[in-house]
Amino acid sequence: MNFRAQHLLSVRELSSDSIEEIFAVAEKMRPYANRQKVTRVLEGAVLGNMFFEPSTRTRVSFGCAFNLLGGEVRETTGLSNSALAKGESLYDTAQVLSGYSDVIVMRHPQSHSVEEFSLGSRIPVINGGDGPNEHPTQALLDLFTIKNELARLGQSIDQLSLTLLGDLKHGRTVHSLCHLLSLYSGLKIQLVAPEALSLPSSYVDLLVNAGHQVEIGSNLEKGLSQANIIYQTRIQEERFASAEEANQYKGYFRLNKQIYSDHCLPNAVIMHPLPRDSRNNANELDNDLNKEPGLAIFRQTDNGVLVRMALFACILGVENQLSKHERNVNWHVGLRK
Amino acid sequence: MNFRAQHLLSVRELSSDSIEEIFAVAEKMRPYANRQKVTRVLEGAVLGNMFFEPSTRTRVSFGCAFNLLGGEVRETTGLSNSALAKGESLYDTAQVLSGYSDVIVMRHPQSHSVEEFSLGSRIPVINGGDGPNEHPTQALLDLFTIKNELARLGQSIDQLSLTLLGDLKHGRTVHSLCHLLSLYSGLKIQLVAPEALSLPSSYVDLLVNAGHQVEIGSNLEKGLSQANIIYQTRIQEERFASAEEANQYKGYFRLNKQIYSDHCLPNAVIMHPLPRDSRNNANELDNDLNKEPGLAIFRQTDNGVLVRMALFACILGVENQLSKHERNVNWHVGLRK
Amino acid sequence: MNFRAQHLLSVRELSSDSIEEIFAVAEKMRPYANRQKVTRVLEGAVLGNMFFEPSTRTRVSFGCAFNLLGGEVRETTGLSNSALAKGESLYDTAQVLSGYSDVIVMRHPQSHSVEEFSLGSRIPVINGGDGPNEHPTQALLDLFTIKNELARLGQSIDQLSLTLLGDLKHGRTVHSLCHLLSLYSGLKIQLVAPEALSLPSSYVDLLVNAGHQVEIGSNLEKGLSQANIIYQTRIQEERFASAEEANQYKGYFRLNKQIYSDHCLPNAVIMHPLPRDSRNNANELDNDLNKEPGLAIFRQTDNGVLVRMALFACILGVENQLSKHERNVNWHVGLRK
Repeated sequence: MNFRAQHLLSVRELSSDSIEEIFAVAEKMRPYANRQKVTRVLEGAVLGNMFFEPSTRTRVSFGCAFNLLGGEVRETTGLSNSALAKGESLYDTAQVLSGYSDVIVMRHPQSHSVEEFSLGSRIPVINGGDGPNEHPTQALLDLFTIKNELARLGQSIDQLSLTLLGDLKHGRTVHSLCHLLSLYSGLKIQLVAPEALSLPSSYVDLLVNAGHQVEIGSNLEKGLSQANIIYQTRIQEERFASAEEANQYKGYFRLNKQIYSDHCLPNAVIMHPLPRDSRNNANELDNDLNKEPGLAIFRQTDNGVLVRMALFACILGVENQLSKHERNVNWHVGLRK
Repeated sequence: MNFRAQHLLSVRELSSDSIEEIFAVAEKMRPYANRQKVTRVLEGAVLGNMFFEPSTRTRVSFGCAFNLLGGEVRETTGLSNSALAKGESLYDTAQVLSGYSDVIVMRHPQSHSVEEFSLGSRIPVINGGDGPNEHPTQALLDLFTIKNELARLGQSIDQLSLTLLGDLKHGRTVHSLCHLLSLYSGLKIQLVAPEALSLPSSYVDLLVNAGHQVEIGSNLEKGLSQANIIYQTRIQEERFASAEEANQYKGYFRLNKQIYSDHCLPNAVIMHPLPRDSRNNANELDNDLNKEPGLAIFRQTDNGVLVRMALFACILGVENQLSKHERNVNWHVGLRK
Repeated sequence: MNFRAQHLLSVRELSSDSIEEIFAVAEKMRPYANRQKVTRVLEGAVLGNMFFEPSTRTRVSFGCAFNLLGGEVRETTGLSNSALAKGESLYDTAQVLSGYSDVIVMRHPQSHSVEEFSLGSRIPVINGGDGPNEHPTQALLDLFTIKNELARLGQSIDQLSLTLLGDLKHGRTVHSLCHLLSLYSGLKIQLVAPEALSLPSSYVDLLVNAGHQVEIGSNLEKGLSQANIIYQTRIQEERFASAEEANQYKGYFRLNKQIYSDHCLPNAVIMHPLPRDSRNNANELDNDLNKEPGLAIFRQTDNGVLVRMALFACILGVENQLSKHERNVNWHVGLRK
C-alpha cells in the first residue's frame, strides 16, 4: 500500500508493509518534533481539523503535527455549531469542506460517519475517531510505542508479551490495537478484565486466528506477571447506559508502585491511551508511578505527534523532501530546571 | 470604488465597477485555490475571524482564504464566550480587537451589529453575516457563480433567466442577491414561493425598478421552465416563531432528478446557498441530482474561497503582488481515485 | 532574573530588573505590532494557547502576539471539551500538552491551577489568569501603560498619583497591580470603593509597607482630585454569590465627561482592565469620554500585545534576533478614513 492521496479510515486498511513505511517516516520526524530542526515542507498547505465531537489532546496533536511540517490549520470543535444540525448530509459537508483545505482530519460521535464523510470528500480524510468504532491513529501510535519501548529494552516485537487491562469491552483503542496485532503472529497476549467488560469474542478470535497465544483471566497479579508491556485502560463511562453502571467497575485492576514492584517484570512498560482517570474512585494508574522509568504514557502521546506527522507527510507525498526545506531553530528549547 | 482599506458591510455599497474589480481579482486566485501555486503575499498579516454566532462553512472559508494568501488567522466562535456578555459595547469590542489584527471578519446574530462594530474599528471590517440582515460575501459568490456558470454554457449575464425558489421571505442571501441584481437591467427573474414566504415587496420593487422582467408565482413547473439558473433555498427555520410553523413549509418546491429532467431547460444550473436540508421532510434538492453536471452547489462554495481571497487582497492592497510572492507546491494535491 | 525558559505564574516572581527587561523588549516590539515591519523570528514555533475558561480578548491577544513573531498557535477554549472532565489531573494534561508545543499560555477557573499545571509541564508556562487569583500579564501591561502614559505627560513613575476605583475587593487585576507597585516606594495611591468592596487589608498593608502614601475613602470627587492616573474597574459580578448582590453596587463611582472635567486634573489618564460594562445600570466609564485624549483604555489593550510579544521573546530567548528575521510589510495598513 502506498499512502499518497489515500484516506485513512480504518486500521483494517493497513498492511505490515504500510505500517513499516509510516513508522520509518515517523522516525525521520524526531528532529523536527524535538525542535532540533524546523522543516517548512508544507508551507502554504491547509489542514481541515474537523472535530465534530469535542477533544483537546487529539485535536491539538494533529494540529501541531501539521504546524511542525510548516502547514496551517483551520478547525472546528463540536457538533452543535455546525450545518449538520440544520439537516446537512455528511456528503454535503464533505464536499464543501474539501474545497477549503488539502487534507481533512475528522472526528464525529457516530460509528462509520467518517467513512460516509469520505465518500463526499475530494481530498484525503483521516479518521480522528468515529464514536465507539475506530481511532486508527491511536492504534498506530500505540503500536509505534510498543516497538520503541521494546527496542529500549533491547527486545523486538517478536518478544512481545502484552497484557491488556481494564474495560476491554468498550475501549476502541484496544479493539483497533487488536487489529494491528493480528498482522503479526506468535505473540503472547493476556486479557485481564471484569467479566462483564471482557474483550468481545470477535477480537479474541482475531488474535487467536492470527496465531497468538491468548490468555483470558480476571486475576490481576497473574495477568501482569509475564508482561513486558502492560496496556491499562480507562472505564469508558460515556459508553455505559448510566454513570452508576460504569462506577461499579471503577477501581478494578488499579496499578500502583507496590503492585508494579511486587508483580511485574523488572522494567515492564506501562502504557495507557489517556486520559487516565486520577479521581480517587478510579485511579487506574496511581501517581506514585509517575517517576517510574517504565511509565511510557507520555512518551506515548509524544509519539502521537511523530506518527501524525508521518501520516500527513505520506498522504501528501512529501516524506522525502523534509530536509530540503529545513531551517535552524532560532529559539531556546525547553525548560531550564 | 476602490476597496483598499475599506469596510465591506453591505451589498448596497457595491457598484458594478467595484464588483467587476473583485471578480477579476477572484479569477487570479484560481491557481492558488487549486494549489497549482502558493502565494505568501500576506505572510505576517493576521485576520481576526470573529464569529459571535456559530458557523462552520463561512468561518472556515474565510480562514482558509486568508491562509491561502499566506496570512495567519485568530478566531472566536460563539457569543457566550465573549466580553459582550459582560456588558461590553460593540464599540469597545471593536476598539480592542482592531488592535490585534490587520483585518476583521465579523458575524453576529443581530441586524446592523457589524455596522455598529465597524464604527469602533481601526482596521477594515468585512460583514460575515449580521443575523437576518446581510451576508454580502455570500451575495458576491452567488453572483460570481451565476456569471461563471453562464459562461460555462456560453452565455453572458444579459441572458440570465433566474428562478428564485423557496423561502424568499427570510432568506438573507436572496435579499442580498436582489440588491446585486439591481445593478443590472433587463434580466428575467421568476419568484416561486409559498405565498406566506414570498419575497418582501421592497425587493420586488427593487428588481422591477431596475428594469428586470419579474414573474411571481407558486407553480413550480412553470417557474422552472425558462430558467437557465435555478436558485433553491432552505426554509430558514431559525427565523420562524416556532419549529412547527417552519415545518409546514418544508418539502415545498423540492427538486429532484425527475422534475429536473421533465421541467427544466437542458443544462439548467442549480444553485443553493447551503446548507441544503437533506432530511426526509425537507429534502430541497434530492441526492439523485448529485451527479448532474448542472448541480453547481459545490462549485458555488469553492467560488466562495476565490471571492474571499479577492476581497482580502483588494482591501489590503496586495492584488497586484500575488505572483511576486509565489512559490511551488511541494505536496501532492488531491485524491487518487 | 532572566526569563529564558522560565514559567511566569505570578507577579510575585517579578523583580524591578526583570520588569525593566520585559518593558525594554516590549518597546522593541512597536514596529512589528504597528505593522511597519514583519519579523519571522519564531517561524516554526508553536504556542499552546490553552484557555480552560472562556476569554476572547486575552486569548486573541496572546495568539496575535505569537503570530506577530512568526509562530503558529494551537488553541483550546472551555473546560467541558476537555479530558479534565474525564478525571485527568492537571499534571497529566500538562505532560501531554507540553509535548505538542514550545510554550503554553494557560487560563483556568481555579486559583493556583496554573501553578499545579506547570509542575507537569516540560516547557515554559505563562499564567493567562487562574480564576480569582492572578493574571500577571494584565498587571504587567497595566504597569507598562502607567509608565508610558506618564511619559506622554512628561512625568516619571516617581510622580505617580494613582486612584484605584470600584470593586477593589474582587478585581484580581487590582491585586496583581498592587504587587507590582510594591516594588516601588513613595508613590501616592488613593483607594476609592464601596466599603463592602474595599481593597483587602493584606494589599493595603503591602502598599503601606512598601512606603507608599495610601489614602482610603469612598468619596469619588476627593479621590479623583489629585490623580494623574485613574484606574477604574468593573463590578466583578461573576465573583459574587448572586447577581442581585452584585447589582446593588453597579453604577457606583461612575466616571463621565462632566465629572472628569470638574474633578480631575487636566490630562488625567483613565485606565480600565476591560471589559467596561456599558449597560445603563453600570456604565462605569461613560461613552462621552470616548474622545478624551486622556482615555487610555485602548492604548492599554494595544500595549498588551507588546508586553506579551516581549514575554514570548524573552522566554524563548529571541529578544536580540528580532531584526535579523525582519521583512517588509507587503500590505496596506489601516483604514482610509
